[in-house]
Amino acid sequence: MTDFVPTPTLPAPDIVRCAYMEIVVTDLARSRQFYVDVLGLHVTEEDENAIYLRSLEEFIHHNLVLRQGPVAAVAAFAYRVKSPAEVDAAEAYYQELGCRTERRRNGFTKGVGDSVRVEDPLGFPYEFFYDVQHVERLTQRYDLYSAGELVRLDHFNQVTPDVPRGRAYLEDLGFRVSEDIKDSDGVTYAAWMHRKQTVHDTALTGGDGPRMHHVAFATHEKHNIIQICDKMGALRISDRIERGPGRHGVSNAFYLYILDPDDHRIEIYTQDYYTGDPDNPTVTWDVHDNQRRDWWGNAVVPSWYTEASLVLDLDGNPQPVIAREDKSEMAVTVGADGFSYTRKDDDTAAEGFKLGAQL
Amino acid sequence: MTDFVPTPTLPAPDIVRCAYMEIVVTDLARSRQFYVDVLGLHVTEEDENAIYLRSLEEFIHHNLVLRQGPVAAVAAFAYRVKSPAEVDAAEAYYQELGCRTERRRNGFTKGVGDSVRVEDPLGFPYEFFYDVQHVERLTQRYDLYSAGELVRLDHFNQVTPDVPRGRAYLEDLGFRVSEDIKDSDGVTYAAWMHRKQTVHDTALTGGDGPRMHHVAFATHEKHNIIQICDKMGALRISDRIERGPGRHGVSNAFYLYILDPDDHRIEIYTQDYYTGDPDNPTVTWDVHDNQRRDWWGNAVVPSWYTEASLVLDLDGNPQPVIAREDKSEMAVTVGADGFSYTRKDDDTAAEGFKLGAQL
Amino acid sequence: MTDFVPTPTLPAPDIVRCAYMEIVVTDLARSRQFYVDVLGLHVTEEDENAIYLRSLEEFIHHNLVLRQGPVAAVAAFAYRVKSPAEVDAAEAYYQELGCRTERRRNGFTKGVGDSVRVEDPLGFPYEFFYDVQHVERLTQRYDLYSAGELVRLDHFNQVTPDVPRGRAYLEDLGFRVSEDIKDSDGVTYAAWMHRKQTVHDTALTGGDGPRMHHVAFATHEKHNIIQICDKMGALRISDRIERGPGRHGVSNAFYLYILDPDDHRIEIYTQDYYTGDPDNPTVTWDVHDNQRRDWWGNAVVPSWYTEASLVLDLDGNPQPVIAREDKSEMAVTVGADGFSYTRKDDDTAAEGFKLGAQL
Amino acid sequence: MTDFVPTPTLPAPDIVRCAYMEIVVTDLARSRQFYVDVLGLHVTEEDENAIYLRSLEEFIHHNLVLRQGPVAAVAAFAYRVKSPAEVDAAEAYYQELGCRTERRRNGFTKGVGDSVRVEDPLGFPYEFFYDVQHVERLTQRYDLYSAGELVRLDHFNQVTPDVPRGRAYLEDLGFRVSEDIKDSDGVTYAAWMHRKQTVHDTALTGGDGPRMHHVAFATHEKHNIIQICDKMGALRISDRIERGPGRHGVSNAFYLYILDPDDHRIEIYTQDYYTGDPDNPTVTWDVHDNQRRDWWGNAVVPSWYTEASLVLDLDGNPQPVIAREDKSEMAVTVGADGFSYTRKDDDTAAEGFKLGAQL
Repeated sequence: MTDFVPTPTLPAPDIVRCAYMEIVVTDLARSRQFYVDVLGLHVTEEDENAIYLRSLEEFIHHNLVLRQGPVAAVAAFAYRVKSPAEVDAAEAYYQELGCRTERRRNGFTKGVGDSVRVEDPLGFPYEFFYDVQHVERLTQRYDLYSAGELVRLDHFNQVTPDVPRGRAYLEDLGFRVSEDIKDSDGVTYAAWMHRKQTVHDTALTGGDGPRMHHVAFATHEKHNIIQICDKMGALRISDRIERGPGRHGVSNAFYLYILDPDDHRIEIYTQDYYTGDPDNPTVTWDVHDNQRRDWWGNAVVPSWYTEASLVLDLDGNPQPVIAREDKSEMAVTVGADGFSYTRKDDDTAAEGFKLGAQL
Repeated sequence: MTDFVPTPTLPAPDIVRCAYMEIVVTDLARSRQFYVDVLGLHVTEEDENAIYLRSLEEFIHHNLVLRQGPVAAVAAFAYRVKSPAEVDAAEAYYQELGCRTERRRNGFTKGVGDSVRVEDPLGFPYEFFYDVQHVERLTQRYDLYSAGELVRLDHFNQVTPDVPRGRAYLEDLGFRVSEDIKDSDGVTYAAWMHRKQTVHDTALTGGDGPRMHHVAFATHEKHNIIQICDKMGALRISDRIERGPGRHGVSNAFYLYILDPDDHRIEIYTQDYYTGDPDNPTVTWDVHDNQRRDWWGNAVVPSWYTEASLVLDLDGNPQPVIAREDKSEMAVTVGADGFSYTRKDDDTAAEGFKLGAQL
Repeated sequence: MTDFVPTPTLPAPDIVRCAYMEIVVTDLARSRQFYVDVLGLHVTEEDENAIYLRSLEEFIHHNLVLRQGPVAAVAAFAYRVKSPAEVDAAEAYYQELGCRTERRRNGFTKGVGDSVRVEDPLGFPYEFFYDVQHVERLTQRYDLYSAGELVRLDHFNQVTPDVPRGRAYLEDLGFRVSEDIKDSDGVTYAAWMHRKQTVHDTALTGGDGPRMHHVAFATHEKHNIIQICDKMGALRISDRIERGPGRHGVSNAFYLYILDPDDHRIEIYTQDYYTGDPDNPTVTWDVHDNQRRDWWGNAVVPSWYTEASLVLDLDGNPQPVIAREDKSEMAVTVGADGFSYTRKDDDTAAEGFKLGAQL
Repeated sequence: MTDFVPTPTLPAPDIVRCAYMEIVVTDLARSRQFYVDVLGLHVTEEDENAIYLRSLEEFIHHNLVLRQGPVAAVAAFAYRVKSPAEVDAAEAYYQELGCRTERRRNGFTKGVGDSVRVEDPLGFPYEFFYDVQHVERLTQRYDLYSAGELVRLDHFNQVTPDVPRGRAYLEDLGFRVSEDIKDSDGVTYAAWMHRKQTVHDTALTGGDGPRMHHVAFATHEKHNIIQICDKMGALRISDRIERGPGRHGVSNAFYLYILDPDDHRIEIYTQDYYTGDPDNPTVTWDVHDNQRRDWWGNAVVPSWYTEASLVLDLDGNPQPVIAREDKSEMAVTVGADGFSYTRKDDDTAAEGFKLGAQL
């Protein structure tokens, strides 16, 4: 196991929430079709190189930037901090960690001002900003409300080989763990970490990394998610539905995973729970609990464990991917996931009892 | 292919709708727990041998009879006819067909009067009755309305080896086809047939039969079905969720398949469409259309194709199961179902593109 | 009370369902905005004089015709009959009744063939047709599915002075009563009557008539109706929401009443119940039951009782309106509706206990 | 206008959220029926004098205490603070303000430890605590999930004569304003104030006070609120539905107001929006905007403006009620609310155009 990231002496920046992701797409027009025509995100601004999108209830300039580029990847996981001074704090914090940082007073994207981007100790491109252009919050623009409307950016999800290392680093940065998945040998497979009062602003999924597992948008209700599936069926792109819809064990949210034209994974998510109390109970799931990833016991498809997006360094080159050394969640649950025990001490169950498994 | 069932010269009985199913269960207390405590069906009446259950909006005595017995099976698929005279018509009709019939003026079950049961040409125990005890319709008893409330019996589904033969027989009996699944060789894999103004009162699924594939209850909305999944998760019986929830291609209904303690399959179903016009368009699906069984392209689990309940003859003995000779839907779609084309002329699609399939 | 309509010796035409309404609007562009842009009905065809609209799951040419004209009114309540011969039956039936009839082999509107229109004994312009152009059924076009999507034409509602007279006439015509509102003096205030297997194809509301009270479209779920309200709020036309949303006592449906630019009243309606059995129990409500019109006891606004649309004779002139002689529902419930008893034998309740009533 | 509350020199306690309300009820058994049998709140603990209730997703001992007493009133609005030390901070803060305080190391109610209660400058009994017993969080107990399940305590609402005075005091205490209602003369009619990242933890409604306007619980979706109405209809207590359901203008939440057996008002509330950013835009509504209180323009019933619950001092005696001197929202909108303009520059609108208003 790699050495832990040292804890800086400087105070961590005061992070408010995950705010936007910048992704590189290889065909901007094709991606626009997916995010705007299919998913209904709202265009704040666009030019030939980039499209700035926001969800219905957002009042900052964007939650997602699509940028045309040669290789599909993620250019930034951007967090909003509590004040302009916290951008300074972020820069100093990462410099103490020995990370490469880049400060731009006019921001890295349109609509955002003074920002710092860093190559963080896990290899991810993190951004911190406060200054941002306010735009019309469309909350009550029900004349624009589509049947599958996305109303908020909810969270990021990052793949990293060593989850405890990443978790300790993010805890130092001020994140708190709401839930995690472990086994009886002490291996951690995933952890959910939050700043705002939901289950997560980002999660760490154990695997070869650094890679971006998904970015998630929230809907108001479950039927909105079902409509997205129905619409993808109508458009004959049901093969881009990767997993779900279903009910998560972890987070309790109703979920759906879909793939954009570059295979960037998008989660649609609704109805997790309030985590704002300082002693919010952490929920630990056993990796052998078949309901942890899907409360209904539906199997996780292998691609969901293995596929993820590259992330870029500050020069725009893909970060090399380091293999996970710990046991993989897929390996320990294969032939079992979707089919293994859901009741303890159930012998027949241990052999798998969804009949489908036996064929 | 077996010879077709002859068309009687006598008029077919005027069937109103599917009305109830009588099933044999091997542990009545355990089944009660499933149908009453988990699914929330309402008990009209019960004794040590049988439980009479109805859905919220039903006004006749029952939609489901659970009867204790040695072998799990289906004792009757019961249809309501339009008047007392139609019971006579049914008896005469099946007698002309050469089928064994049994008439009971006081009914075969509590709450039902003059009835005839027959061993039909496909080997199924069909019942026809008009006279029935009216009970409180609980439609506005919202004080009894559970989060996953079942509000109507919707349909039966029967497994039979030769679908065109069964279809022609049911058309003679007055059923009309709303949808079917075929291939370009002219093989029919399944057909949906109705008397009331919904997609079906019963469907024929091609396979080894006669067997009962499932019986379906309707909910008001989609979230009611999701709640049933959530509750089964909470009760740690998620392994009894066999397939779904999902959106059907055929029928357009939102669906879920679950298994009772004897592996009788129950569908929970909502929001198909009106079929009452005489020229209601029949929808034919290509068996190779990956969205026919699940509009979102999620794979059908093999057990759903292979497993089904035995049916009883009028002496209460299981009918022998005859193998299907035509191609099986599972066989022609395996390695493809959930993974095959959804867009015509899509070469890569033809090879299967859900990554999960390749592992 | 007027004499009852005589029962013809000829058989009544076999009516399938309410199929479309033709309404005259005074500003076609303004009405298009309401029905297409706000409500999302689908345009089958249009020209400078008329727009032909259908709901999502419809397969016949239209459910609503908007025709430009000088006076807002209803030109036809059109029913589909079971076969071409039933149009002849309808013509003969009304001729025996002494009603004026007009037969057009090429139909009165685009998309509809051989039809007969009549001035019925209550003064309403009824149409009967079988032949109609089939169009794309948009059931699974979820790419077109708006958040407040209207999926079916559900029913008409007619205002007539003498409800028992109208009811007897419609019963002769083959309609069956599902529910009605009466008082202990034997006065009937309203009756709901069906051919298809729902609560109604049309209803009779006691009042000055003949007038059209409303035409109703169904949504799939309750949230679709709420979205229509939300959208009307966003468009700052909340003053066109006349009543609701709410839960009906009668029919148990979730409802909303809105007004089009000519004050034609539209109901949006979802989730009534199956009425297809021959002995479907009729529900009679006491006019003094405060939950009959709104299950939650919310008051009916007076305009809902008093306002309605004129109907045209076969020359296109408005039919004269005859005053109701029986007690009016509004009068017997005023000062009480929304405030009167909901529990029998509750003395304080009898005086009205919603505090708002006392101010 | 009364003098403003002075700003203390001591730091305000760091409040996490509204946590519970203690209310006095005059018939504990009758209130239990309402809160447990009708609304489905979960009993953590009870004895002959008090019942401790919590919502589904709560992990602290209770969100509502019902205590038997002679006069219906509110004994405490309790907030959770961030650490044990913040209870000291709260005590010192209110002592500097000259308020009466009472500290109890073992808490005022079961399940809660070290607490301070104060008679705040507006006359309300506020409590601050950190130490609390954790109990089972029922989030995934879908076997207990009722169709109208209440999942979180959302907010309090307090009636006070001078809203700007109360607002300044609460801003000093660390609350931030999300929305308010004003007029062009500068009168403030109401303000919504939050600590957690929702629209409010408490709101100030201008009126005779100190009184408690309502306490609000959240559901997951809108249909859960509709079910509560439907159930109250089924129980024939529809007269206890005071207002709604509807969509708020302010907060954008879907809402319902009901009355408990002592006329304490309960709001059921769902789907407001995220307010956690430091520069979350404040929304100011014009008191003459007819959609501010109900986005669909439905009238506010007068009782909603005039009726509210008494609050107790620390001896358990009702606080005297001081009359509001500023204009009342009801007075400035009467004859208009539900009927006034929704579109600026609409002359006819200004006169009121819901036809019901004219009768």
